[in-house]
Amino acid sequence: MSKEKTSIPKGTRDFGPEKMAQRNYIFDAIRQTFEKFGFLPLETPAMENLSVLTGKYGDEGDKLLYKILNSGDFLSKTSLEDLRKGYKQVVAKVANKGLRYDLTVPFARYVVMNRHEITFPFKRYQIQPVWRADRPQKGRYREFYQCDADVVGTDSLICEAENILMINEVFSSLGIESFIIKLSNRKILAGITEVIGAPGKETEFAVSIDKLDKIGRERVFEELTTAGFTADSLIKLLPIMDMKGTNNEKLELLRKMLSGSEVGLQGVEELEEIFGYISNFGLKDDHTKLDVTLARGLNYYTGSIFEVIALNSGIRGSLSGGGRYDNLTGVFGMDGMSGVGFSFGVDRIYDVMEEINAFPEENLVSTQVMIVNFDAASAAHSLGILTRLRQAGISSEIYPDAVKVKKQMSYANKKNIPYVLMAGSQEIDEEKYGLKDMTTGEQTRTSIEDIIELLKG
Amino acid sequence: MSKEKTSIPKGTRDFGPEKMAQRNYIFDAIRQTFEKFGFLPLETPAMENLSVLTGKYGDEGDKLLYKILNSGDFLSKTSLEDLRKGYKQVVAKVANKGLRYDLTVPFARYVVMNRHEITFPFKRYQIQPVWRADRPQKGRYREFYQCDADVVGTDSLICEAENILMINEVFSSLGIESFIIKLSNRKILAGITEVIGAPGKETEFAVSIDKLDKIGRERVFEELTTAGFTADSLIKLLPIMDMKGTNNEKLELLRKMLSGSEVGLQGVEELEEIFGYISNFGLKDDHTKLDVTLARGLNYYTGSIFEVIALNSGIRGSLSGGGRYDNLTGVFGMDGMSGVGFSFGVDRIYDVMEEINAFPEENLVSTQVMIVNFDAASAAHSLGILTRLRQAGISSEIYPDAVKVKKQMSYANKKNIPYVLMAGSQEIDEEKYGLKDMTTGEQTRTSIEDIIELLKG
Repeated sequence: MSKEKTSIPKGTRDFGPEKMAQRNYIFDAIRQTFEKFGFLPLETPAMENLSVLTGKYGDEGDKLLYKILNSGDFLSKTSLEDLRKGYKQVVAKVANKGLRYDLTVPFARYVVMNRHEITFPFKRYQIQPVWRADRPQKGRYREFYQCDADVVGTDSLICEAENILMINEVFSSLGIESFIIKLSNRKILAGITEVIGAPGKETEFAVSIDKLDKIGRERVFEELTTAGFTADSLIKLLPIMDMKGTNNEKLELLRKMLSGSEVGLQGVEELEEIFGYISNFGLKDDHTKLDVTLARGLNYYTGSIFEVIALNSGIRGSLSGGGRYDNLTGVFGMDGMSGVGFSFGVDRIYDVMEEINAFPEENLVSTQVMIVNFDAASAAHSLGILTRLRQAGISSEIYPDAVKVKKQMSYANKKNIPYVLMAGSQEIDEEKYGLKDMTTGEQTRTSIEDIIELLKG
Repeated sequence: MSKEKTSIPKGTRDFGPEKMAQRNYIFDAIRQTFEKFGFLPLETPAMENLSVLTGKYGDEGDKLLYKILNSGDFLSKTSLEDLRKGYKQVVAKVANKGLRYDLTVPFARYVVMNRHEITFPFKRYQIQPVWRADRPQKGRYREFYQCDADVVGTDSLICEAENILMINEVFSSLGIESFIIKLSNRKILAGITEVIGAPGKETEFAVSIDKLDKIGRERVFEELTTAGFTADSLIKLLPIMDMKGTNNEKLELLRKMLSGSEVGLQGVEELEEIFGYISNFGLKDDHTKLDVTLARGLNYYTGSIFEVIALNSGIRGSLSGGGRYDNLTGVFGMDGMSGVGFSFGVDRIYDVMEEINAFPEENLVSTQVMIVNFDAASAAHSLGILTRLRQAGISSEIYPDAVKVKKQMSYANKKNIPYVLMAGSQEIDEEKYGLKDMTTGEQTRTSIEDIIELLKG
């Protein structure tokens, strides 16, 4: 058997039953929260036209798009001249479809295509895999799920407050308590560049400050200097970066520091409004921390930005994040569609849950009871028992072959099946079946009615 | 705005909230049944190495595989010489990954890769999309979901009986009552070729007889003649094809007709055993119909075969189907792995349910109550109400902006939200809120406790 034949592509994964149960536990928590907050599901195709995807993720992103070879004679539109010029000249002629790179662009494309049917504000969630031809490494995959929720068609900051609430609800229901939600606003970043004397340099500022956690202050300052920030402006930046205290104290400070910037003050007011809503919702420990060094790399954010980090954890990077954009669909020719969206990173959340042992054990159990297959007569009778168990909603199975009981028990054990039912000839005569609790090893003999009651309880 | 920019690839679909709710209704029914019968979930990556996929689906299938262009300079391994020879020479050098074509081959690949960790018999289900570069037409898509359940590592015919049970349970829970499960066995087909004097021609026979519904008896006979079947053998075939009566009567007839064929009689016995188990399970109306003209095109079936057809319906083709294979993983070098598997076709099931109006209306409702946004004070108070509703598990939302009430009502209406809650200043003072039943138009004023009780009920 060749090894190549039975491998999977680098950076992709199979999810066997145990992993699936754990991942579904996370997906279910996210889905339930999204729905409880009035979001409805959307699914888009894995394949999108490259005209939809290209140019939306920067040059680096374009390189990471997986392109699908056109069917049939894919070379028919390519001349030898093209081929001599190299692959960049050829790619657009041999591939017109690509794999979804994120869920935001397909969502924008969907909104534009269906704008006459959609009821705005449109609250949708989407849980689907995306693909990126990235270099695989620990925690970074070429195929991974994103879980997005977006509202488009409203400026209301209630939406941002609800995002904070949903993050709290999801993590609380998953048993993750050590986390913070860093919260800021792009307008504050813009205000900062104004007051330190680098107006209009908000994008460069955001891109560099975004790397603060990774590369440290010194190198961020080097980058900013290269980007044209003066020594004077960097000195003015220091007290802003060193800001300490509660969210309210920071808001107070920012209002003073940004008093000369209209846009900056607007950012401060928006943050205050959001904190007000969170308090109206009655959320006590909201885990939020105003952090002006938060930038969120993606350029399309224009208002609130937020990101979730695990505390006291070996897991780096954000577990969730999002923000407000003014013009999601502008790139497809439909302007004025403001919205706010955020995403949960299932792989990182999974890693944190493994780290703190947050997965419930019973979650892995699917089949609740296995019936031992003694012989043909026992099996025939047991099928009737199975029907009664299943009619009562109890997941159950019979071992399909009449092999040694030890082997059947080992199967139940490995599959984490908590109960084993035995219907030998005597049990069948008396209509009292053996029931073994696989955790305690305890064995009882009782009626099918009692067994159903026990297993349903 | 260019039209091209906002389109999706031919043969693919977006599923908006309503379609998603309907499709999830089907997926949930299938998933619940699979799990109730002890099947556990598996997911494999969308991308597989082409070495895994190629050669598994015949020449036609190879053509329909979507291939993914290698990243970076995909032309680096291709010489101008290769390019002059045409695309068939080039494809293997520019693409080493492809999109999943079905769920069976990735399952076989998974079993081989994980054979030392898997507990056999291994019962897995898998619900994921597959991709085929087929010509799109009504009911045929380039991206569509398959829902498979397979057991490998056992010869027990209890598995086949359980497949029949699961089909009955899924359709019954979906409200589809007019269907038949055609059931046969490849060994019976082999037996037939033996007794009509065309031994060894089982594959040709299966391939032709499979088209009976589509092209009619005359053209099937033409094909068989071309394949070397004599006129004499075709005449002997007639009484077998015209067989009528109950399943038991047909079994009786077959036992006589196939008395000269060991393998044929074995097929008859297997069918009898399966019918016996179904009866042991206590299933009264099992919808099965023994049909010796059933063949199931795919060559890897070696035992039982079955297929589900909608009766009195405009929907052609099978809603579900499957069978037993002796050697699923042989192609990956692991022999002797017998199993039985079947699949539900969600798109066809969806079409049948639309045809007979089987979708429940309340299924589409996600948000149960919307709170009207009158003004800032009302909204601030309403956020506290929302928290109470959501803590009680009630999906609820506030209209994010304080726009005209008529517009908010129209939103609730279009989103099929059954209740609207109003908290104006007077309502807030009295702690009695207005609740409008959007179906009847009736309006009451009551406490939040009563509202929660009503909505939870």
